[in-house]
Amino acid sequence: MSNTPGIAITGASGRMGQMLIGQVFANDRVRLVGAVERTGHPWVGQDVGVAMGGAALGVIVTDDAHAAIAPAQAVIDFTAPEATLGFAAIAAQAGTVHVIGTTGMTDAQIAQLEPASHQAVIVRAGNMSLGVNLLTQLTKRVAAALDEDFDIEIIEAHHNQKVDAPSGTALMLGEAAAEGRGVALADVSDRGRDGITGARKRGDIGFTAIRGGDIVGEHDVLFAAAGERITLRHVASDRAVFARGAIKAALWGQGKTPGQYDMLDVLGLND
Amino acid sequence: MSNTPGIAITGASGRMGQMLIGQVFANDRVRLVGAVERTGHPWVGQDVGVAMGGAALGVIVTDDAHAAIAPAQAVIDFTAPEATLGFAAIAAQAGTVHVIGTTGMTDAQIAQLEPASHQAVIVRAGNMSLGVNLLTQLTKRVAAALDEDFDIEIIEAHHNQKVDAPSGTALMLGEAAAEGRGVALADVSDRGRDGITGARKRGDIGFTAIRGGDIVGEHDVLFAAAGERITLRHVASDRAVFARGAIKAALWGQGKTPGQYDMLDVLGLND
Amino acid sequence: MSNTPGIAITGASGRMGQMLIGQVFANDRVRLVGAVERTGHPWVGQDVGVAMGGAALGVIVTDDAHAAIAPAQAVIDFTAPEATLGFAAIAAQAGTVHVIGTTGMTDAQIAQLEPASHQAVIVRAGNMSLGVNLLTQLTKRVAAALDEDFDIEIIEAHHNQKVDAPSGTALMLGEAAAEGRGVALADVSDRGRDGITGARKRGDIGFTAIRGGDIVGEHDVLFAAAGERITLRHVASDRAVFARGAIKAALWGQGKTPGQYDMLDVLGLND
Amino acid sequence: MSNTPGIAITGASGRMGQMLIGQVFANDRVRLVGAVERTGHPWVGQDVGVAMGGAALGVIVTDDAHAAIAPAQAVIDFTAPEATLGFAAIAAQAGTVHVIGTTGMTDAQIAQLEPASHQAVIVRAGNMSLGVNLLTQLTKRVAAALDEDFDIEIIEAHHNQKVDAPSGTALMLGEAAAEGRGVALADVSDRGRDGITGARKRGDIGFTAIRGGDIVGEHDVLFAAAGERITLRHVASDRAVFARGAIKAALWGQGKTPGQYDMLDVLGLND
Repeated sequence: MSNTPGIAITGASGRMGQMLIGQVFANDRVRLVGAVERTGHPWVGQDVGVAMGGAALGVIVTDDAHAAIAPAQAVIDFTAPEATLGFAAIAAQAGTVHVIGTTGMTDAQIAQLEPASHQAVIVRAGNMSLGVNLLTQLTKRVAAALDEDFDIEIIEAHHNQKVDAPSGTALMLGEAAAEGRGVALADVSDRGRDGITGARKRGDIGFTAIRGGDIVGEHDVLFAAAGERITLRHVASDRAVFARGAIKAALWGQGKTPGQYDMLDVLGLND
Repeated sequence: MSNTPGIAITGASGRMGQMLIGQVFANDRVRLVGAVERTGHPWVGQDVGVAMGGAALGVIVTDDAHAAIAPAQAVIDFTAPEATLGFAAIAAQAGTVHVIGTTGMTDAQIAQLEPASHQAVIVRAGNMSLGVNLLTQLTKRVAAALDEDFDIEIIEAHHNQKVDAPSGTALMLGEAAAEGRGVALADVSDRGRDGITGARKRGDIGFTAIRGGDIVGEHDVLFAAAGERITLRHVASDRAVFARGAIKAALWGQGKTPGQYDMLDVLGLND
Repeated sequence: MSNTPGIAITGASGRMGQMLIGQVFANDRVRLVGAVERTGHPWVGQDVGVAMGGAALGVIVTDDAHAAIAPAQAVIDFTAPEATLGFAAIAAQAGTVHVIGTTGMTDAQIAQLEPASHQAVIVRAGNMSLGVNLLTQLTKRVAAALDEDFDIEIIEAHHNQKVDAPSGTALMLGEAAAEGRGVALADVSDRGRDGITGARKRGDIGFTAIRGGDIVGEHDVLFAAAGERITLRHVASDRAVFARGAIKAALWGQGKTPGQYDMLDVLGLND
Repeated sequence: MSNTPGIAITGASGRMGQMLIGQVFANDRVRLVGAVERTGHPWVGQDVGVAMGGAALGVIVTDDAHAAIAPAQAVIDFTAPEATLGFAAIAAQAGTVHVIGTTGMTDAQIAQLEPASHQAVIVRAGNMSLGVNLLTQLTKRVAAALDEDFDIEIIEAHHNQKVDAPSGTALMLGEAAAEGRGVALADVSDRGRDGITGARKRGDIGFTAIRGGDIVGEHDVLFAAAGERITLRHVASDRAVFARGAIKAALWGQGKTPGQYDMLDVLGLND
């Protein structure tokens, strides 16, 4: 028990924050030791479990990020870019592993993480699901192994409230496929096929987007040749997979050399 | 054997004609009794099996359509609209069942089949596969049974040489879904989804087209609601299914009252 | 609002009871008016929302089933056979629609519902999901439309805690397929294929069971012939679909003639 | 043209032999230079194209294996174990690449290939399809990357004439998964699930076999955890993929150091 890493969660009241708290609490390889919200938020000062509408968990929500993060072995952070930069400084000072699921960071903001990564382990990924990260790696390898006799198509399905197409993850998979082939995605991307399209252009990477119901997220990478096909498929059925990926990253980071890592490092797939 | 219907094939040298000859020959419920080609075609006067590069089948290719069709119990015809109108007149006079897989007929041409259908059975369909016809019927029924809580998406996959999207069969399925819901497809069709699309519009019918390898033809009709989904899927793996559907129609037509029929009649699904 | 049917829920504290309460509360076409638990249960006397760990819903859990059911327009009941028989008598006396999702009832117990069904509407189904009921109906129709050239396989996938195979729903689909073909399932069932099996027997209905992760429930009915295949697929991704099916049944039952009905009646598919 | 490797085919009259001849002829990166049949076979002495029922190809079928193999740059051989050992000796002497797709070789027979592999390149694989070999490699990697929170299931589908289950390829994939996990397949294999099975055993690798129609061969490797799933899928739709894999191996072997190789070497995936 004394070896069980303590975890602090930032943005505790958010949808992802609450999911992280629930998942940390349910996982006996980690302990919940801190919950952070911004000053003035009504949860500050309350037990986080009570604030979430359930039983007390013995952790009081605080607006003092330093007090929550410094004693923790890891902080898991799905907030916003500016907040994340502040947490990075605190984690660096304390030597706490910083798991970053925050999206929308600019290149400049990502560069600002550099100093912190000399003092503490940072694991950052746009998608914390183990499966999607693994699929990205496989896509790159398969695209490198097969030639253009295999047409690549990326097919994704999401719920009917999603406002963009294709999904960010589909594009990430497309980037991986293009990288495997040694081409630029922008040069080969074929999107929104409709009408008299002509025959498929050899070497293209096609994208299609299905929308319906409450589908959490499904991605197929199809490699289709004459007579055979390979499909690499990921199905997410519960957003908790993103929380569990983050916890896995927090555990993996313990004892590692300070630096910047991603989920492929956590999975041992960065080759 | 004397009860086994004799079949004549028009357009014998074409890709579909040769497939029909092969399938009729392989099926012991029918006999090949005639093979028609246009006057001047090099196959005329040859044994059709020899002309196809194999063993003799005992049927000489002829350019005399009347001589081939009149003694047959059915003529199977995947040719061109004008030729088909000529064969219809001959079949009507002889009382021969006329199975028409010819595509691209105009409404005016279809209307010209009317007199022939008073004298002989005509079975005509844009897609002779039993499976696709059944799927069309199922799609209409399911669309009628479910309300707009179920988002409808039609997903098709074809080989990389196909020049249009979505496929004609996908559009036929979309028409069936729209008819089941009592709406016009043109009002609800959502094609070529790409970029910032906004949330899916309730009641829309979406289409997506996958292209790769030598996929013969695959169609999914997805009905997706919160918490559950139904998919109706058809996979064609061999173009011979179109020939077999035509033979089934030829057999079904024996002894029926003259008139115009489609594959749903053959399947007993026209309700 | 005065026309919005009031719903009572039995077994309020159970997993399905709580899901029903949540779904009724979230649906503005119905109102929650009663919540029943057995005498001595700690929830009795509490507001049901508070007992569930959330906000008050204004309905106090009671052990007086008559007081909860009599003023309701429908009672939804996923409990146990003996309890269900008691609720049926109360609902019959009050003329309240009784939606029964209780499983494991013997034929004798089902027969005991007969008198109640002369006084009130009873809707009973082993699976309340709209999709599965629709799939059952489609399976029967397709099996009737296609001959034995189409091999029927029923493939199901469930979570890794499921203790039996194939699933009850897979067997229900198999029964529907056999009925469509006019055969007895017991005579054609092919289960647990392993080792030197010999070629597939024409006319057999095969079953396979996949187990893994937390898959809620997926069923495919495959009809495979030479050159083409049809698949009818249902995917349940949230157990709430069973609750929503029950609410739909409760609404459908309003104003109907007393009698016993099933979900196919609710869907308008009993032909 | 002078650099285009010449290929000899053994077992020319067999189903696989004829497919190889057709594929070699259709591929402009190789030339057909020899066709071997056993002494006394009616094809011996005929042009192989004529013997196959088509146009002459300019290659006479011979029963003198040495005369056919010695001048070739590669011999492709899908015959029987004893014949293959004889061809290996001839190829070794001539320095001809020997691509072996023959199945059913015993360990003792495989060991007898050792001397030949000191003189010439041998590429041998139980399944010559690029896709299946790649899938095997991916399966091992994914199984190694993921822990037992991911349940592994191998699902295969084949035509209704297949007499055994699961398929040899499914077992090969199971071996790869077990190897990735560092366990013996025999200890964790779960086959023929039926009846009261109890909950799935953690760490097991499950197999299911679907049989229907004329399905050429489909294999899914499913990794299913709580909230997410990865599926690696291969679909073979044409047996020609095995011939094309063999030709790829023949080309790859040109100029390589004598030795024994498999399709993973050809694909550059043996890491």
